[in-house]
Amino acid sequence: MGNFVPQKSDKFTFGLWTVGNPGADPFGGPVRTPVTPVERVHKLGELGAWGVNLHDNDLVPFGASAQQRDKIVSEFKQALTDSGVVVPMATTNLFSHPVFKDGAFTSNDPKVRAFALRKTVESIDLGAELGAKIYVFWGGREGTEVDASKDAVTALKRFREALDFLSEYAISQNYGMKFALEPKPNEPRGDIYLPTVGAMLGFISTLAHPEMVGVNPEYAHDTIAGLNFYHAVAQALEMGKLFHIDLNGQKPGRFDQDLRFGQEDYKSNFFLVKLLEDYKYDGPKHFDAHALRTSDPADVWEFAKGCMRSYLILKEKAQQFNADPEIQALLQEINAGDAASDAVLSAGFSTENLAALKSLDLDPEALALKPLPYEKLDQLTFELLLGVR
Amino acid sequence: MGNFVPQKSDKFTFGLWTVGNPGADPFGGPVRTPVTPVERVHKLGELGAWGVNLHDNDLVPFGASAQQRDKIVSEFKQALTDSGVVVPMATTNLFSHPVFKDGAFTSNDPKVRAFALRKTVESIDLGAELGAKIYVFWGGREGTEVDASKDAVTALKRFREALDFLSEYAISQNYGMKFALEPKPNEPRGDIYLPTVGAMLGFISTLAHPEMVGVNPEYAHDTIAGLNFYHAVAQALEMGKLFHIDLNGQKPGRFDQDLRFGQEDYKSNFFLVKLLEDYKYDGPKHFDAHALRTSDPADVWEFAKGCMRSYLILKEKAQQFNADPEIQALLQEINAGDAASDAVLSAGFSTENLAALKSLDLDPEALALKPLPYEKLDQLTFELLLGVR
Amino acid sequence: MGNFVPQKSDKFTFGLWTVGNPGADPFGGPVRTPVTPVERVHKLGELGAWGVNLHDNDLVPFGASAQQRDKIVSEFKQALTDSGVVVPMATTNLFSHPVFKDGAFTSNDPKVRAFALRKTVESIDLGAELGAKIYVFWGGREGTEVDASKDAVTALKRFREALDFLSEYAISQNYGMKFALEPKPNEPRGDIYLPTVGAMLGFISTLAHPEMVGVNPEYAHDTIAGLNFYHAVAQALEMGKLFHIDLNGQKPGRFDQDLRFGQEDYKSNFFLVKLLEDYKYDGPKHFDAHALRTSDPADVWEFAKGCMRSYLILKEKAQQFNADPEIQALLQEINAGDAASDAVLSAGFSTENLAALKSLDLDPEALALKPLPYEKLDQLTFELLLGVR
Amino acid sequence: MGNFVPQKSDKFTFGLWTVGNPGADPFGGPVRTPVTPVERVHKLGELGAWGVNLHDNDLVPFGASAQQRDKIVSEFKQALTDSGVVVPMATTNLFSHPVFKDGAFTSNDPKVRAFALRKTVESIDLGAELGAKIYVFWGGREGTEVDASKDAVTALKRFREALDFLSEYAISQNYGMKFALEPKPNEPRGDIYLPTVGAMLGFISTLAHPEMVGVNPEYAHDTIAGLNFYHAVAQALEMGKLFHIDLNGQKPGRFDQDLRFGQEDYKSNFFLVKLLEDYKYDGPKHFDAHALRTSDPADVWEFAKGCMRSYLILKEKAQQFNADPEIQALLQEINAGDAASDAVLSAGFSTENLAALKSLDLDPEALALKPLPYEKLDQLTFELLLGVR
Repeated sequence: MGNFVPQKSDKFTFGLWTVGNPGADPFGGPVRTPVTPVERVHKLGELGAWGVNLHDNDLVPFGASAQQRDKIVSEFKQALTDSGVVVPMATTNLFSHPVFKDGAFTSNDPKVRAFALRKTVESIDLGAELGAKIYVFWGGREGTEVDASKDAVTALKRFREALDFLSEYAISQNYGMKFALEPKPNEPRGDIYLPTVGAMLGFISTLAHPEMVGVNPEYAHDTIAGLNFYHAVAQALEMGKLFHIDLNGQKPGRFDQDLRFGQEDYKSNFFLVKLLEDYKYDGPKHFDAHALRTSDPADVWEFAKGCMRSYLILKEKAQQFNADPEIQALLQEINAGDAASDAVLSAGFSTENLAALKSLDLDPEALALKPLPYEKLDQLTFELLLGVR
Repeated sequence: MGNFVPQKSDKFTFGLWTVGNPGADPFGGPVRTPVTPVERVHKLGELGAWGVNLHDNDLVPFGASAQQRDKIVSEFKQALTDSGVVVPMATTNLFSHPVFKDGAFTSNDPKVRAFALRKTVESIDLGAELGAKIYVFWGGREGTEVDASKDAVTALKRFREALDFLSEYAISQNYGMKFALEPKPNEPRGDIYLPTVGAMLGFISTLAHPEMVGVNPEYAHDTIAGLNFYHAVAQALEMGKLFHIDLNGQKPGRFDQDLRFGQEDYKSNFFLVKLLEDYKYDGPKHFDAHALRTSDPADVWEFAKGCMRSYLILKEKAQQFNADPEIQALLQEINAGDAASDAVLSAGFSTENLAALKSLDLDPEALALKPLPYEKLDQLTFELLLGVR
Repeated sequence: MGNFVPQKSDKFTFGLWTVGNPGADPFGGPVRTPVTPVERVHKLGELGAWGVNLHDNDLVPFGASAQQRDKIVSEFKQALTDSGVVVPMATTNLFSHPVFKDGAFTSNDPKVRAFALRKTVESIDLGAELGAKIYVFWGGREGTEVDASKDAVTALKRFREALDFLSEYAISQNYGMKFALEPKPNEPRGDIYLPTVGAMLGFISTLAHPEMVGVNPEYAHDTIAGLNFYHAVAQALEMGKLFHIDLNGQKPGRFDQDLRFGQEDYKSNFFLVKLLEDYKYDGPKHFDAHALRTSDPADVWEFAKGCMRSYLILKEKAQQFNADPEIQALLQEINAGDAASDAVLSAGFSTENLAALKSLDLDPEALALKPLPYEKLDQLTFELLLGVR
Repeated sequence: MGNFVPQKSDKFTFGLWTVGNPGADPFGGPVRTPVTPVERVHKLGELGAWGVNLHDNDLVPFGASAQQRDKIVSEFKQALTDSGVVVPMATTNLFSHPVFKDGAFTSNDPKVRAFALRKTVESIDLGAELGAKIYVFWGGREGTEVDASKDAVTALKRFREALDFLSEYAISQNYGMKFALEPKPNEPRGDIYLPTVGAMLGFISTLAHPEMVGVNPEYAHDTIAGLNFYHAVAQALEMGKLFHIDLNGQKPGRFDQDLRFGQEDYKSNFFLVKLLEDYKYDGPKHFDAHALRTSDPADVWEFAKGCMRSYLILKEKAQQFNADPEIQALLQEINAGDAASDAVLSAGFSTENLAALKSLDLDPEALALKPLPYEKLDQLTFELLLGVR
């Protein structure tokens, strides 16, 4: 059994805002005095995290002068060097300030859209300065509660206009950056545009530079809508668009919980980790979560350790699954192929192949009788995950 | 006030299976003796429907001989001629027979995949013979309850393999057909692959013939997951991918209800109809719904009339909204532009334009104070929809 | 058509916290400078509201001295007198301060439970001083995210202990108060104990003074869980336990939105208003909602006016429904009784009546054929609500 | 580590309809030829089940003659004797036949209500003859899709009328039976009355014989609405109303899946089993689930075995949790009491005790700082459940 100690090669990352979350929610104020970004970086390094991510305003307060900014950034870079922690991803806060209350890139007010664009340009510069090669876009305010207020078709055109501008800006600066779009179905807006991993994948195909744009799926977000997150990530991965991933916990059909990775739905998390490992995803594994409001500062670090340990435990379970003789025998039986059918299916359409398809000997009644022992397979999975086999 | 009588130009359509639904559900058997497909077509024609859609097995029973098939199809074509009803859309039943219990195009068994492919080829032929120019794919069984049983990445590759084959088949036959993919998050499977309109739009961009493939969004389906259907359809429309639409009613977060169009969430339906009308969608408006299990045959036709009347009522409301001086004045105020910002935003990226963006005079504190009277606007919408203004 | 101007007899009330909400949410700070409680009361009076409700700390800040408290309360009472606004309901803030982060009456820490009890005693005194005859308990922090941390059986015993103490306290002071328990399924806790109207009704039957305890159902709360709010309120009303009601708007399966009454699901709101009017509910109609974060101060008052207007519009629709000849004829047909069966059913059990039941002539096949034209009825409801009949 | 072999003393039961489910769903017909009830009983006995439950029509077809019924019952009793399997619970099928399409006890038609009552009287007799001491009521059709069709207040009065009649009937026959009401939020009806465990507990308090009526909570049902099932069962148990329990699996916010116990949300199932074991629930543990549509007959029995094994595995985990020194030390720390506060809280209200409460030394700022290491505790739970500690 593994010791579940995180290594740099695991590429575990945390947002500055995650371990720095002071515990406020809509019904109560902060409960923790957050430590400084510099202290967070040092502590994350000690715990074995590889990187730290940030919104511009996690580090540099909104409206800071150039001088203030440079001082803050310089101290932060020193802390990165000292702690051996890197910044693989950066992003823009386009949701906290009241100016963005009705959206940033999709606001009806062109001045707000321009301000959002300019803020993002500056934040991309900051990200580049810190070494980030992935730039995340989460459009938390890009949505509505009152659909009368905004044309949904126009909103998408505006969102594209901004992303195309920013793609070309990043290219012009030779930043070598990729963009990762992060969907969320709702909260803080009643309904957010492009609400799922799928919607973002569709949207990307319409951009001016689709090759540099992928997705940043977050476990909690598709899960709010009750969707299968493993399936969503598999689609992104199959399309070559899994540029980043946000791992956390969430119960379906409720407010955004951002729970510790591993806190909810162990089986779903298992298939997610197995997917990332089996397909050798090598981007950052970012824990976009925060400790419970009940946690004191010591428990915040237990939270951070728990995220990483849980991933490593599930990774070991995935290796066990792939090595389990009974499970693998079942899978082999289930996936027993048929040479003739496979040949036809893989050959693609042609007149000859169509004829071959038509002449295959296929009896639906007989095919329907083939055993599919999925109850047994799922029970074995349960027992493997619970450590009783 | 309109008389709300459907016209052929409204392009209202029903599935054979909708008005023919016998009222069975998981907890009870049929309650209605369905009338024949020929009778359904005549009645739909009388009520003002433009078209009727079908799965192959709605008309031709599974396993029918070629002779039986031809007789049935011939009688059906006569009914179409007699009633003046057209068949704009056809689709394949890849979900009822036990052979498809673990999927059709994504089954682990290549023989099942081949059988599904062959059945679809034949069903496309039937659709073409009946004049259908839109071919719908709803993969109701393409999913899982046991994710151990099927690799989600592989499943998408298999789904693509089938669609690419069928695209080329349709092209080879000069059928002039477009394909419309219909997503659903779950039911009958625990989780269905490509569960949302967005996921399908993403998937389409990876196909061999994306230009001939669009989506068939269904109100009930994205609504099961609590997503904003108006937003989803707007994305499809903005991408030029709204090839067909299924209108019905559904409460979020529960089993597939397929209620009468207009039965649930009047405001959401209003914005949907307004979108289709404002953007001059001219494809079929298909009511993929069925009467309640409580309905007798007479009430089934009240159901069908109700679907069409509700659309026309909401269409009139959309015209009123577009003509309402107070509402339009509010919208104009909300959308008041700014020449300088608009110029920068629409020009796209260039070094000069970046400089222009940087020199725009934008004060976030001042911008945040601009009134956004959305409570008032939504209240006016409520009052307009309820006929009290 | 009515003019929809609120009267005192409508008993419309607002919480101080509703029209005073500054627009903060988990992703952004306040956007509005709230006016003082005194100003809110005056404005509500002008708009036609009958009453204003409050948490202790909406008026008196947490930790205020007795002298500060008395000064604030005195000024507030003057404002009530001047504006003609009453305080029908009061409640305790047991959720904002960090001391309650793991619950108040159900905290594991007896000191926290004692503190919560004492704070409530003082807040009941304040409510009584202001004339409140209804005291609401919303246990927003009484729940968990980590079920290992608290025994759910013990938690209910603790909650009962507090309520029984407080009931006897209120009785001892001759306050003539009734208690109204307000359930919510989740937020701010992952899962809140006694999450639905039904759960509270069950719990009340176990209290020491069930006769003085009823419920305060909130539209948004049962709706978060996708439950039918009209059904929930009907159960409370049928049990004589509808002591108060919170009206607002909410989409199912997402974060707590507290939208304007009438903003979502017009039909559901209609049946709710019809229930309250048909059964002559004469308690306060409390709008526990707040304006959108996009609203400026002027739009906040549009929000408040809209809540009241929407109720009155739906009330008029209920009168129309009750007077509509076609609808009423349908309902009469549906409810056509049967003297023999009715006699048996209403007589209750006895040996003779059992024999009578056994000898009734009941043919299930024939009974199943009775028309139930619910599609027609629901379509007429749609058309009545949309003002096109 | 246990061997997880079910014993009679575990009181595991299955419904005849569960292991006999032929695999039909709304989109496809049966896939399995069910074995006879007699064969099912024998096989369940072999697998270690203690009992089998049934609806009247699971055994005796609707409309069977008295002679047919007696023959079937006699053969079934023989099978029970031979296999050593008992019938602890029986229930009525009031949902399959078209006569019940708009409800049984709450139908608008008094003839239907009378028919339902009579059918239940006969089914109670059958249950008593087979030895059942628990009689379950699941009102699957007691609800609406069209709230205009039925007054929700009247519906509850009708439901009560039926239950009171039946209570007195069972008493009159000295059957020694208890009734267990089973709630479900929706499906097959759009919304079912009394939708949650809580709603049933509230309703029971209004019955003529509340002492003989409790609840039969089903995991899948409250979970459809996203409610915490462990909390719901805890309320029933704390009220002395947990008369029966239905164990299975379900993902929130979708159609009724009736999955194998243990298939979904391992942690939630763990706390449920821990509750039943810690509080020594000694009623039947009924698996109201069915094998997947993909299962062949052999996999159906894997399903049945899996339900029982999963319970036993989780029971062992509960014992480990209760014995784990680190976890128990944490719980002790979290639950460290305070003698003075405890004394006041447990004494109940009195003038003296109120004074004692007021004089307790309670500093909210200090109390808020007490560590609540719930992240650590939940992580330990994760690791214990996954077998890595």
